[in-house]
Parts: sequence; C-alpha cells; structure tokens
Amino acid sequence: MTVEILEIDSRVLRGNPLGDPHLRRTPVYLPPSYPKGRYPVLFMLTGFTGFGELMVQRQAWSESLPERLDRLIRTKKMGEAIVVMPDCFTRLGGSQYLNSTATGRYEDHVVRELVPTIDARYRTNRRRAVLGKSSGGYGAMLLGMRHPDVFQALACHSGDMYFEYCYQPDFPKAIDLIRKHGGAAKFLKAWEKMPKRMSGNLHAAVNTIAMAACYSPRGKSFDLPFDLATGAIDAVVWRRWKSLDPIELLDRHARDLKKLRGVFIDCGSRDQFALHHGARIFTAKARRLGIRVQHEEFDDDHSSISYRYDRSLPILQRYLSGK
Amino acid sequence: MTVEILEIDSRVLRGNPLGDPHLRRTPVYLPPSYPKGRYPVLFMLTGFTGFGELMVQRQAWSESLPERLDRLIRTKKMGEAIVVMPDCFTRLGGSQYLNSTATGRYEDHVVRELVPTIDARYRTNRRRAVLGKSSGGYGAMLLGMRHPDVFQALACHSGDMYFEYCYQPDFPKAIDLIRKHGGAAKFLKAWEKMPKRMSGNLHAAVNTIAMAACYSPRGKSFDLPFDLATGAIDAVVWRRWKSLDPIELLDRHARDLKKLRGVFIDCGSRDQFALHHGARIFTAKARRLGIRVQHEEFDDDHSSISYRYDRSLPILQRYLSGK
Amino acid sequence: MTVEILEIDSRVLRGNPLGDPHLRRTPVYLPPSYPKGRYPVLFMLTGFTGFGELMVQRQAWSESLPERLDRLIRTKKMGEAIVVMPDCFTRLGGSQYLNSTATGRYEDHVVRELVPTIDARYRTNRRRAVLGKSSGGYGAMLLGMRHPDVFQALACHSGDMYFEYCYQPDFPKAIDLIRKHGGAAKFLKAWEKMPKRMSGNLHAAVNTIAMAACYSPRGKSFDLPFDLATGAIDAVVWRRWKSLDPIELLDRHARDLKKLRGVFIDCGSRDQFALHHGARIFTAKARRLGIRVQHEEFDDDHSSISYRYDRSLPILQRYLSGK
Amino acid sequence: MTVEILEIDSRVLRGNPLGDPHLRRTPVYLPPSYPKGRYPVLFMLTGFTGFGELMVQRQAWSESLPERLDRLIRTKKMGEAIVVMPDCFTRLGGSQYLNSTATGRYEDHVVRELVPTIDARYRTNRRRAVLGKSSGGYGAMLLGMRHPDVFQALACHSGDMYFEYCYQPDFPKAIDLIRKHGGAAKFLKAWEKMPKRMSGNLHAAVNTIAMAACYSPRGKSFDLPFDLATGAIDAVVWRRWKSLDPIELLDRHARDLKKLRGVFIDCGSRDQFALHHGARIFTAKARRLGIRVQHEEFDDDHSSISYRYDRSLPILQRYLSGK
Repeated sequence: MTVEILEIDSRVLRGNPLGDPHLRRTPVYLPPSYPKGRYPVLFMLTGFTGFGELMVQRQAWSESLPERLDRLIRTKKMGEAIVVMPDCFTRLGGSQYLNSTATGRYEDHVVRELVPTIDARYRTNRRRAVLGKSSGGYGAMLLGMRHPDVFQALACHSGDMYFEYCYQPDFPKAIDLIRKHGGAAKFLKAWEKMPKRMSGNLHAAVNTIAMAACYSPRGKSFDLPFDLATGAIDAVVWRRWKSLDPIELLDRHARDLKKLRGVFIDCGSRDQFALHHGARIFTAKARRLGIRVQHEEFDDDHSSISYRYDRSLPILQRYLSGK
Repeated sequence: MTVEILEIDSRVLRGNPLGDPHLRRTPVYLPPSYPKGRYPVLFMLTGFTGFGELMVQRQAWSESLPERLDRLIRTKKMGEAIVVMPDCFTRLGGSQYLNSTATGRYEDHVVRELVPTIDARYRTNRRRAVLGKSSGGYGAMLLGMRHPDVFQALACHSGDMYFEYCYQPDFPKAIDLIRKHGGAAKFLKAWEKMPKRMSGNLHAAVNTIAMAACYSPRGKSFDLPFDLATGAIDAVVWRRWKSLDPIELLDRHARDLKKLRGVFIDCGSRDQFALHHGARIFTAKARRLGIRVQHEEFDDDHSSISYRYDRSLPILQRYLSGK
Repeated sequence: MTVEILEIDSRVLRGNPLGDPHLRRTPVYLPPSYPKGRYPVLFMLTGFTGFGELMVQRQAWSESLPERLDRLIRTKKMGEAIVVMPDCFTRLGGSQYLNSTATGRYEDHVVRELVPTIDARYRTNRRRAVLGKSSGGYGAMLLGMRHPDVFQALACHSGDMYFEYCYQPDFPKAIDLIRKHGGAAKFLKAWEKMPKRMSGNLHAAVNTIAMAACYSPRGKSFDLPFDLATGAIDAVVWRRWKSLDPIELLDRHARDLKKLRGVFIDCGSRDQFALHHGARIFTAKARRLGIRVQHEEFDDDHSSISYRYDRSLPILQRYLSGK
Repeated sequence: MTVEILEIDSRVLRGNPLGDPHLRRTPVYLPPSYPKGRYPVLFMLTGFTGFGELMVQRQAWSESLPERLDRLIRTKKMGEAIVVMPDCFTRLGGSQYLNSTATGRYEDHVVRELVPTIDARYRTNRRRAVLGKSSGGYGAMLLGMRHPDVFQALACHSGDMYFEYCYQPDFPKAIDLIRKHGGAAKFLKAWEKMPKRMSGNLHAAVNTIAMAACYSPRGKSFDLPFDLATGAIDAVVWRRWKSLDPIELLDRHARDLKKLRGVFIDCGSRDQFALHHGARIFTAKARRLGIRVQHEEFDDDHSSISYRYDRSLPILQRYLSGK
C-alpha cells in the first residue's frame, strides 16, 4: 500500500484571514501497479471538521481509505486510480471548498494548486473526479458544477443542500448560544478555549458561523443569517446563502453538469440533517433540466457511512475510464 | 371552589367535517364572592391535544386551574373573575381556535357561542380577556387580534408564532413518516389505531397535518405545505400558513391590537420549539407599529409551565378592571 | 356509565408521618346491570405518582378506565365486575401499597378498610382480585401474596421486581443529586418547591427516596441504600430492600400464591426499567416452586400501555367467576 | 518532536485465541533532550476500542499526545520522560491489560515484553509509571497493583471500578441484544459484519461480552455474568468479575500499593458510567488501609477529557524523579 503525504506549500492560502497554515499535508494514494500506467485521479473531500490526513489513519474496526482502495482494487471491484485527499480544514472547522474573503481561497487551492501539482508529480491521465461526504459532498457538487473543464465526474454523499432543512433548524439554537456569549466574535473567542468543541448545542452555533464565513462573508468577517436581537431570519443574507445551495446552483450550472460523464448522488433515508430530502429535490430538479443523475438511497443515517465509498469509487473510476 | 361544567350544544360545530362532537363540556370557574357582583370573564385556551376539562382535573403535585385561581384570589394576588375553559379539541388534536373548512368553526364557537352564552348565564360585566399556552397562546393572539370588540385584553404564553422556527423543522420528519404510510390520509387512518399517538416522530407528523387542516384547508381536506415526492416546501401553501402567523397578522391587525387594554406575551428562554424567538420577533415588530406589549422571558422550556398563569391571570384581571 | 367517587375517611392513615390526607377520594365503577346481581370486585392500583381518580379522567385519544370497562363488558369481552380505584398517593409520589413507619399504613388501608367498605356498600360476591401497572403491579403482587384470604387472583403489569435492574442503576444519579442538595432531607425540601418535579435526573432521586421510605424506613425517616459520602451500596439496607422484592417474597409466599385462582404477569419486551427481566426471573422461579403463572410479553416499552388492561381485566374476571 | 513507532513482534501474543495480530505498532515518544540523559518511562494505556497509535494521530482542534508532551515540557510544566503507547487492542475492543485464556496475554505483553524492550532500546533510568483513561485507567490500576516492582507510580483517569455501577446497568440491554441474536457467539458473528459497531445499544452488549472475555474466561470462550434465559445475574460469575474490581483488588494488594511512590486517581463528577463513585469508593477504602492516594474530581463527564493528562503527566514524572 503506497500513500505519499505531500506537504503542499499553498500560495493561495498564504495570509489567509483566519491565520490557518498554508502548509498542507495532502495524502496521495497510489494504486498497486503504479507507476506502470497512467491513472485517473479522484479528489476525496472530507466533511466538516475533517481533513485529508484523517482518511489514512488507522481506526478500530474500520478500514482507512487506502485500505479500502487496496481491497476494492485487489478484488477487481474497482479499476486503478490515484486518490488525493486535500486538507481544506480551517479554524472554524471547514471551508466548504469555496473561496471566501473570510476564510481563504480553498476552491483555488484544490482546483488551481492541487490539480496541476498532482498532474506534475504523478503519472495521471488527466481525467479527474471529485467526491466527498457531507460538507465534502457539498464541495464535490460545487467544484464539479463550477469546473467541468477540470473534473469529468462527481459523487456527492449526503451532501449539504436544501439549506431550509439542513441549516435553518439550527438557527434558534445558534442564536441562543451566540447571544449568551454576547455576539459571534465573543462566542468564537470563548469557544476556542473550550476543551469540548462540539458538545451539546455547540455544533449548531459553530456550524452556523462557519457556514456564514463561507456563504456570507463581509470582508474578513461575515454576516449572520439572522438578526441576533430578535432571532428573525435576515432575508438578504439568506438569499446569499441560498444562491450557493446546490439546488439553486443548478439554475446557473445545468449546462456545466451536462458536460460531465457522470453525477452520482446518494443519501441515507434517515439522515439526521434531512439531506435525503435535499438529494431528492436536487435529483428531481436536475432531471427536469435534462441532466442525468444516478441517485441512490440507503437505509441509514448520516454517521459512519464510509462504506458507501465502496459504491461510488468504482462508479467514478468507471466514468473516468469511459466504460 | 365552584366549577360548573356546562354541556354546550354547539350549533356551529354540528356536522363538522371531522365528525367531532358538537356537545362540548365547558368548565366555568366562579369566584368566591359569586354571585354578589358582576365579574370580568377570562377565556382560557388549552394547547394542542388539550381541552378545557383537563384544566380542572386533579394532578399529582400540581394545582388544577380552579385551585390556582382560588389561591390567587384568596391571597389577594388577583381580583375576582369568571374563567371559562372551552373545548376546541378535534380528532387531529386541536383547531388552533380558527374556522376551517377541514376541521370546523372553532373561532365562531368561542366568539359567537360561548361569549353570549356566558353573558346570558352568568353575572358578567361584559369585559373579557383571552389567554392560553402554546396553541392556546396562538388562539389568544388570533382571537384578540380579530375580535377587539369582544376581548379587551389577551395573554399569550409560549404561543405558536414565527412558523419558520416552530413548524418548519418538523417537515422533514413529517414527510418521512407520511411517505412511509403512503400519504396523509393513509397515515391518519393508521395513526388513529395506534395505542401511542405521540411517541417518537409521530408528533412532527400529526402536528404538521393538524396545522395544515387549520391553516391550509382545501374543502374538507387540506394541502400539505410540501411536495411529498421530493420534500420541497410548497411556496403557495406556505404563504397561506404564513398569512396566519401572528407575526404577519400584525400587519393587518395593528389597529385592532391598539384597541386592547393590554397585550401580555411571554415565553421560556429555552423553549424547545424556539417560540421565545417568535415572541421576540412579534414584540419588536408590534412596538415598531406603536403597539404596547408587555413582554417577559423566564428561564425554562415549553413543558409544565402553568405556574406562569400566576403572572398573567392577575395582569389580565387588572387590565379588565381598568386599574 | 356509573362511577361513584367515595370519599373515604381512613382511620389507619390519620396522623400519617408525611402529613398526607386521610380523606381519600376513591372511584368505584359499577357495571351496567348493577345492582341486579352480585359482582366480583377488582382493585386497580395505579403506578408511581398516580392515584385512583386519574383513571376516571377524560384524556385526549384514550379511554378512561370506566370507558374501557364499559366497552369490554358491552362487547362481551369481559364479564361484569365492580372496579375500585384506591388512592394511595403520598407526598413522595407513592406508597408501594405497603405499611411503612415512614409513609403510612397503605396496605392496611386497602386490605382492612377498602375491602370491607366495598363489601358493605356494594353488592359484591366477596370474590376479589388485585391488579395494577408498574408500582401498582408491585402492589398487586405484594397484596396478592400476603393476603390470599382476601384476594383470589392478581395481575401484575410491568411491576417493580428484580431490584438490581429496576432500582440500582438509578443510584449513581440519585446520589449525585442528593449530595448536591446536602442530603435527602434538604433535597426533599428543595424539591417540594420545584415547579417541575420529575424533569432530568429528578426521577432517579425521587424514586430512590420514595422507595427507601417504603422499603427501609427508620421510624418516621428512612435509610438510604447507599453511603452518601462514597456512593457505595449499603449491604444491610439493600438486604432490607431485597427482602421486599417479589423475587424474594416468593420464597416466603409460595404456598400463598398457590392458593390463588390465577396469577397473571406481563411486561413489554423493551421496558425502560428492565422489568421484563424481572417478570422472566419471577416466572421461572415461581414455576420451579410449582406455582402456575400466566406470563406474557408484548412488543412495547413501559409507557402508555393501559391497552394491556384489555388483556388482564377479562382474565381476572374469569378467574373470579370460576370459569 | 520525535516519535518512533516500534513494530513489536510479541512472543506472548502469538497464537492468541482471538486471532489478533502479534505484530504491534507501538509509538514511543522521546523528549527534546533525548538522548543526552537517562529518562523515566511512562506507559500510557488507551481506553476501550483504542490502541497506542491513535494517540499520535492528528485531530481537529486537539493536540495529539506527543504535541501535548512537547508543550508541557517546553513550558516547564513537566520534566522530561519517554512515553510508550502500547497496543493491546483486540477484536472485541480491548483486553483490560489482563492475561486471559479467552483474549491473550496482554498483561505479560506490557510487563514482560514492552518494559524490557524499552529498557534495551532506549536510555531509560528504569523508573516507570503507568497511566490511562477509562479501560486504560483500569489497566494502570491493575498493572500498578500487581507489579510494584516494575512500576513506581500510577495514574488512573476515570478508570473502570465499582462494577455494580459501571457494568451492571448495561446487563439488561446486553441481554436483550444477545438474546435477539440467539446467543453471544451468534451475536459476535453478526456484529463483526455490521458497519456501525457501537451505535444504539451495541455498546452495552459488546462491552459486556468483552469484559466477560477478560474477567470470566472459560478456556477460549467465556462465561456471561447472567443467565440468558431469564436475565438473572449469575452469582458465581459475578464473583469472578468482582474479584478483579480494583475496589476488591485493594484487599489483596494494599501492601503493594504502599510500595509505590505515588497513586493519582481522578474522575469527572458527571461521569456517564458513574466512575466518579468508583473513584470515591476506592479512595476511601485505600485510605482506610493506610495507602496515600491523590484523588481529584473535575466538573466534566467521561468524554474528551484528555486535557486531564496535563494534570497527571507532570505529577507522575515528578513522582519518578523523586521530587
């Protein structure tokens, strides 16, 4: 099993507003026959609070991503591919793989830095797919739609979409907690000192703030999607969020999606964040727009579903192999 | 302690579409000095799944409403009043105290039937207030706004408002459950046979359907506020719901609310249904419109908060007494 | 439907140590043909925090006990019987239907007061059964075992037994809460002022204290089954509790149980308090001792299972009718 | 930061009954000045489902153990030490660091293999302490008591003890789940195929079985501490478990513990597994036996408490340095 961990010195992340590192450790899985041929490349994006290196760590009772790939390839379930695991983590937990003045240029990091770096260092065939779960599924959708020249396929597992269901229900809890600390800045300051960063209602507040930093930045800061004084949703900010919801991105990127060789989307039918509804809404709308989507549901929730990569990895590899 | 239980034969509820009874047992509390004077009348509306008679039942460790009234009056915390406890229960759990072609004419039942009946049978001074908790708080707000000629004051405890926060988060769970049964009609049929009507996610589905029957009836049936196939919110139906949200009712009824002698609104600052946000939004908007609102928050959630009547009952009695 | 609510002036409860009332409102259901014949009598015991009158109150979507009885008798599912609903409630939530120097003589109240009173006032045939759910199931087991001359049958639904599983897991939480208040006396004083008597971990503490008052009284006070300082279980006190566990009562009362015409025991197979294990252990041991037990399990938990009375009431009536 | 990952080929784990690997990757942290001096050695034991390598993995928002050590040493909060992170993981989730015919010789692995290996390979001063959290805290207590010649100090964080509170409450849930699968062997077989090994009630069943394999082995299999048919606790098996409870081990090892330079024990005062009670009971009993124990409580629960190593690591290092 070969995994190289590239230490990428990102130019676009230098001086990023959150003070996050510009040196990024990026694991690259090389398939068994490497370097005998030329290989398609899969970019695997992690979910919120994750980063690429987590995917190569050994876990109790479950395979790391490289172990999974080795097994899939060895048992002929999947063709060979290079798999890159970017690190787009931020102090706020993640970047949604977007460029934002409040977090940094993570979209550029993946598309303009990692893609050419991988092509330069490894024997790729210049075919690429992007995939991920949760926020990584969102990133796959976003990068796939916006860069059909770069990626030829995408897989979105339980990805963030239909923000009315996946984010909005967190707002009341987020407001309560942020108010208690006297505003978002004070909340963040207190939060960075807490030993337990995600217990209780913290997830609602942290996720809402992180998404605001991604979807509604204002210079190096961000607009919250609600009025902290009353709790009412701020229609203007909410419009900005919604314009980045894959459901609405579809309106602008239908033609781009049609260029792809394949779009795979799935979700557990009991997803705690109601993302199965998002996937259904996306699929129905995409099909109305004439886009071919492979949509699946499975009987599970949002947690510990990396076994679904057994489904998407071979499909993406096949899309890229033109089979 | 005197409580008379009137068995009201409602004309407006005869032949109601849900087949609910038109005979309604309606407790009436009479104050200690009754019938020596003439008394203001408070209409106390129960929450979802409740009806007036529940308020006179003996409970472990807590006072019934008549016991509470007796204590408040005896200890001079409150002036005397007649208190009426309407029964607007339906097979779906409640009526929101509205007229709906799908449930029945509950607004008329209270305003056109109970009010004159009470005046006819008891020594009232024709001053009236309406109050309640949760769906009863909603009803108090609705009836107070729409009938300022009938009611001179209202108190809304943890009342349903800002539907984005109090109802919308239930939609994904409601959709899942309704789909599983093959639609709302089949769900209701199965539900009526279940021994446990509110366990697990049932509350989300039942409440959503009941609210649809109140807010978006279509003849004897109703429109769901979402597309069952995909889960997407139906913007047209949602507009109908929102037009009955107290936050929006304010636009049409600001002048009516100004006629009242008093508007009291409170909510626990940890309300599970986020109704404290609704109360804040309502209060801020009402004040911008020049309406005087007495707004309080208390450190509790949505459950077992009848002790808050100790606060509102004396205030309402005082409003009506012109003190 | 005829329900008479007897106001019993209990001699044995006068001056009880908790200062609870000696006047007890005791509903008595009379069957449709009453008083044309002579009828067996069923004593229905409520669970912790309950009292007889709760069983006649109207509820949303569920039958009261008298409504249930009327339906069962009308549809010939059950023969006629008088059903008595004792009130053995205490300030601590219940009495376990035991005589205790710390709570009062509730066993005597049922057996020596209610039984003769009912025989004196109503046309009984002097055949009696006792039944109940949860703490009421415990009471049914206890009274049935100790008074086979008084009761000829019993039914125990999800009754407290195998104290290792149903009470012991509460001890750590109870200790934490009682310590926080500075001991059981101070805890109780604070608790009696709380508006919410059973929220969060309160149930664990209140139930443990109430059981100590029943199972390990010391004069007017009681011994806790653990050392508050360290949390260690007090083996001596625990032995006193265990000697009142139906599993151990069996050792002393096997012969008494054999005198009964019928012993019915059931429990949900997902009981939150693990009482299904208790019922299995009891049944296995009873059968080893040669006692006939009708044991059933149903697919449910501990809550809202009054539909199981549809099963036990006809069976008990039949036992008493000698069919 | 220097961490060497030793790949230990364990002789005592060869042919272990669970078929777990005998090659064990064992990280060793070397302090900044290494190899200039001679250093005490700390053996850090992980909790259930853990293994040493997890402690060196990078995490979102929290330090790895080597990062923590570097910071503590750099800021002079702690003196220098070598820290070894053994891998005693098994297919069942852990070994409790015991020798068991059902799992393997993990006590021997640490004491007879790792200790001499470390002394042979590194510049140690032959002073050693053992510490850990949860099952690792149990292991620290066990190894410290049984090998006072090997270890001179121990720290037990939230360690398994007073089995009545930490294990027994799981039995009813474990029984339900094991019965559903038709016995422990069939349960394990099904469990090993589940993608989610610890969701819902699985933890109760898996932990109970794993502890049985450690505390009550029978050849290569094990005795469950209850009768699966009825759920009753098996007194004989339970005695075997209890004889390995640190509370009872104290009776046999009081003299051994007195030989140590230091015993540190702490626990969160809201531990979900009630281990704070265990720590209090242990401490009270140890002190009665004349053993000096440093006992602390902190306001937290059982999860994400690695920040407590900031407390124990410097203390242990100091104990070993004879200061």
